[in-house]
Amino acid sequence: MLDVIAPLVVENTTKIVLLSLDGLGGLPRPETGKSELETASLPNLDALAVRGACGLIRHVAPGITPGSGPGHLGLFGYDPLFYQVGRGVLEALGIEFDLRPGDVAARGNFCTVDDRGLITDRRAGRISTEECIRLTDRLREIQVPGVELLLEPVKEHRFVLVLRGSGLSGALSETDPQATGKPPLPVRAHDSEARPTADAVNTFVTQARRVLADEPAGNMILLRGFDQLPDLPRFPEIFHLRAAAIAAYPMYRGLSRLVGMEILKTGAGFADEVVTLRQHWDAYDFFFLHYKDTDKAGEDGDFDAKVEALERLDGFIPEILAQKPDVMVVTGDHASPSILAGHGWQPVPVVVAGRYSGADPVGAFSERACAAGTLGIMPAQHLMPLVLANALRLTKFGA
Amino acid sequence: MLDVIAPLVVENTTKIVLLSLDGLGGLPRPETGKSELETASLPNLDALAVRGACGLIRHVAPGITPGSGPGHLGLFGYDPLFYQVGRGVLEALGIEFDLRPGDVAARGNFCTVDDRGLITDRRAGRISTEECIRLTDRLREIQVPGVELLLEPVKEHRFVLVLRGSGLSGALSETDPQATGKPPLPVRAHDSEARPTADAVNTFVTQARRVLADEPAGNMILLRGFDQLPDLPRFPEIFHLRAAAIAAYPMYRGLSRLVGMEILKTGAGFADEVVTLRQHWDAYDFFFLHYKDTDKAGEDGDFDAKVEALERLDGFIPEILAQKPDVMVVTGDHASPSILAGHGWQPVPVVVAGRYSGADPVGAFSERACAAGTLGIMPAQHLMPLVLANALRLTKFGA
Repeated sequence: MLDVIAPLVVENTTKIVLLSLDGLGGLPRPETGKSELETASLPNLDALAVRGACGLIRHVAPGITPGSGPGHLGLFGYDPLFYQVGRGVLEALGIEFDLRPGDVAARGNFCTVDDRGLITDRRAGRISTEECIRLTDRLREIQVPGVELLLEPVKEHRFVLVLRGSGLSGALSETDPQATGKPPLPVRAHDSEARPTADAVNTFVTQARRVLADEPAGNMILLRGFDQLPDLPRFPEIFHLRAAAIAAYPMYRGLSRLVGMEILKTGAGFADEVVTLRQHWDAYDFFFLHYKDTDKAGEDGDFDAKVEALERLDGFIPEILAQKPDVMVVTGDHASPSILAGHGWQPVPVVVAGRYSGADPVGAFSERACAAGTLGIMPAQHLMPLVLANALRLTKFGA
Repeated sequence: MLDVIAPLVVENTTKIVLLSLDGLGGLPRPETGKSELETASLPNLDALAVRGACGLIRHVAPGITPGSGPGHLGLFGYDPLFYQVGRGVLEALGIEFDLRPGDVAARGNFCTVDDRGLITDRRAGRISTEECIRLTDRLREIQVPGVELLLEPVKEHRFVLVLRGSGLSGALSETDPQATGKPPLPVRAHDSEARPTADAVNTFVTQARRVLADEPAGNMILLRGFDQLPDLPRFPEIFHLRAAAIAAYPMYRGLSRLVGMEILKTGAGFADEVVTLRQHWDAYDFFFLHYKDTDKAGEDGDFDAKVEALERLDGFIPEILAQKPDVMVVTGDHASPSILAGHGWQPVPVVVAGRYSGADPVGAFSERACAAGTLGIMPAQHLMPLVLANALRLTKFGA
């Protein structure tokens, strides 16, 4: 699809705001029959739904629950089934690690093994983050000839391993046997080109076991999700947009940088994000704004907290609209229904509001109301072309 | 898509019922402007539509009328354009013939030819099934060296020919010239590998003409739809489901066996099927239940009979729900509008009801009401992933 869109893109001075409410979609609470969006008082989002075109976004396919990576790549215009990003790369992006082309990243777990080397706990009892920082630091003493090793703690038992050097490959099997009572597996190369990388990783793992031998809380490691930065078409170039990302959480800054957006420095809350938007308004054509609280409440299974997070966000809408974007889009990267306490597969409401969006009979910004909108149920990667069209930045296809 | 789904499947103890109402969809009767579903009184299906998520299923593509094979393969999760099953194989499945891998099956017609060997009736005046049984038995005396020939009567002028042996191929042209006044065509091999099979079939046809020479009611045969069992991924393995099919009609048992479901012995009516469901409830995770009466009435062009068939079925819904399936799905394999008196291309209502299905504004189980549902118009092969997700049997895609 990007090959069809790219030649149609034309210059304009119009401005676009894409506001992603993380984990936006929900499900009715059995007690009331109403979802979080239907329970919350959202005068500003509802008004936007009244004057814009509404629909539902399906990020991957029916029944498929998107992770944050595929969820956002879809919103940015990339077919998430075609452009896949490995877990190691996402983990590195999540701590804003400066991953470079050619680097191989893996997600690491500290684990525990018994005297015979058999795994007793794949997550080392979820050791504290402080302990993780200390153990990761010990791994930094390991040297493997010909490869630079970069290690960063993440959270609890998780860390990131990055191999840097020439001729590396991410075509490697995982060391995690996904069960206790088994030994960690040696890494295998999926093709002959990946053999030197497999050798380097196996050397590292052997040494890690030696280094950690006197650490009963986490005396071994497991590695999975080896991958390199994917070669994604650059968002600012394919869409001819000076594009900026404003996100308080590192994962979303990382995903935005992955597609070539500029990352604007901002504070820890959404109020800071809106200030950042205002400060940089003139310098960019496209702003990606990320709001995390909806997902956090949904993943915690806290229906009331999600309702409150939605209402807080609603209060910021007038400030954003005060910048007078030509096209204002509100949607999310996936559902996080509180009754599921995790990501969901349900399609997510979307509103596209602008001078040429048209208005449909939708009177509220909710899952059920948007299902009747004129945008229908839309694959996520179709959103960006629609937004560009609304910003009069796409010429016609065929004479 | 199956390649994307299979790695996401996780184990669970949830139970799923997929109820297929054959030929479910209809069209408004001009006198009343109401379809069969809209005319029938369906309190239980309507209640299911109220509490579940609704939509329409399109089995192949807009305007394409599905046969029973593609219609059910789609419901089972297989893209019917990718996984095609030949007519000979379907005919063999329809009589529950024990077709084995490597067998080549063809659909046969008895026909009549004149003294010069030119076809005078391609269906031999639709001879009686008794006559078909007698003529088929006569064909059993034919022997072709190196190939075992298996012959079974079907109905009226139709029979099944199966060739069994090593190195056989279904890449063969048909002998039916699709016109009277022409001679039956010799079978041609589509590739060199199929030449021995073509020779065997041509030998069989020559001998059939000799054997039937003294049978004026059906003195020749036509063969078409040569094919072998397709190599379908096995349903229980890709979806990690202990899957059972409960169907009174042999064709649907055959299609279920084709994808690897277990076939449960049941009686001739739907009441028997529900008893069978109850008896085997604990032993399986997934039940495919088939109801034939809706299609039969639709194909007969009997609007009132179809309304009654729907109402009878509706009465069984509480008994099925009494088993407390975690996910209850009701849909069909294709439309059979009474005013068409045959299969139709119209998309077919679907309801998915479970704890996490969400409810949409749909208040009735009908073509028009379901068009406003949150599932939208969905390709049939997307139903199984959606059902698995609702049964909490799919993990997320991407981190």
